[in-house]
Amino acid sequence: MTLETSLIDSALRNWRSNVDRAGKLFGNLSQEQLQYEVAPGKNRLIYLWGHLTAFNDALIPLLGLGLRMCPELDLMFVLNPDRTVPAILRGEDLKVIWQETSQILWKGFSTLSVADWLQKHSAVSEEDFLREPHRNRFTVVLGRTVHIAYHVGQAKLWERVQT
Amino acid sequence: MTLETSLIDSALRNWRSNVDRAGKLFGNLSQEQLQYEVAPGKNRLIYLWGHLTAFNDALIPLLGLGLRMCPELDLMFVLNPDRTVPAILRGEDLKVIWQETSQILWKGFSTLSVADWLQKHSAVSEEDFLREPHRNRFTVVLGRTVHIAYHVGQAKLWERVQT
Repeated sequence: MTLETSLIDSALRNWRSNVDRAGKLFGNLSQEQLQYEVAPGKNRLIYLWGHLTAFNDALIPLLGLGLRMCPELDLMFVLNPDRTVPAILRGEDLKVIWQETSQILWKGFSTLSVADWLQKHSAVSEEDFLREPHRNRFTVVLGRTVHIAYHVGQAKLWERVQT
Repeated sequence: MTLETSLIDSALRNWRSNVDRAGKLFGNLSQEQLQYEVAPGKNRLIYLWGHLTAFNDALIPLLGLGLRMCPELDLMFVLNPDRTVPAILRGEDLKVIWQETSQILWKGFSTLSVADWLQKHSAVSEEDFLREPHRNRFTVVLGRTVHIAYHVGQAKLWERVQT
């Protein structure tokens, strides 16, 4: 491994372990458990899982790795707050989408060269990227790893309900 | 910037933005607000802040950047659960330690070369490092960034108390 690929390897291990942690935590909950709020008046677990799934799905085109699987997730779990959209996907659906998007991303990551990782992501213009070259694919994956951990930390609080 | 330093730059920006976010969130709370639990029966905000401060402090020797400022934080905020240690530091003390350890780390980061980042951290043996070369300084900082975000996500829930 070169120095660059070692650095990327560290970041991808970090991504993977957080994706796996989230998948395990939410994937092991029943549809009834997914209705719990992480704290009184706050988001339900099903919403957090849908939210993270929507972000993973949106990462596919953001990194130039293909089309989204389920753009309709955004209306349910990103653009609108919890409990305001009458029909949302169930846990078993999210589990499948989570697994499939994770696989698409993981496969896609392995096709990227070091130079590709440092190229702009699809939501930044050429002009902005000249001024802000840190707005690259690598930065996006680091930020999204943190985003998963942020909500997993909240979701872990559901365990209080059982004590 | 070379490819390697660009990758490191992305990771350090990510670290910095999460340290700043935590410092702002906790640093703006009163001593009274810091007594709130993030969810019923769960850790108080003061404990989470102390916990993150202890981890930042411990990162200094882990990365070979010097001695810890406050090893006594571990007894208060890492080795024992919340509410079991009678005397713990106050928010104003933690704020100072948070700022100082953040500065020590940030300065120390700038002294590390790419090869330094890929060297083992101080808690792994030479022998283990040969087998698991990903247990390097860079991996530690990525993991600690995620650790901050995990607890900041929980701490953000305190806002419910005010609604």
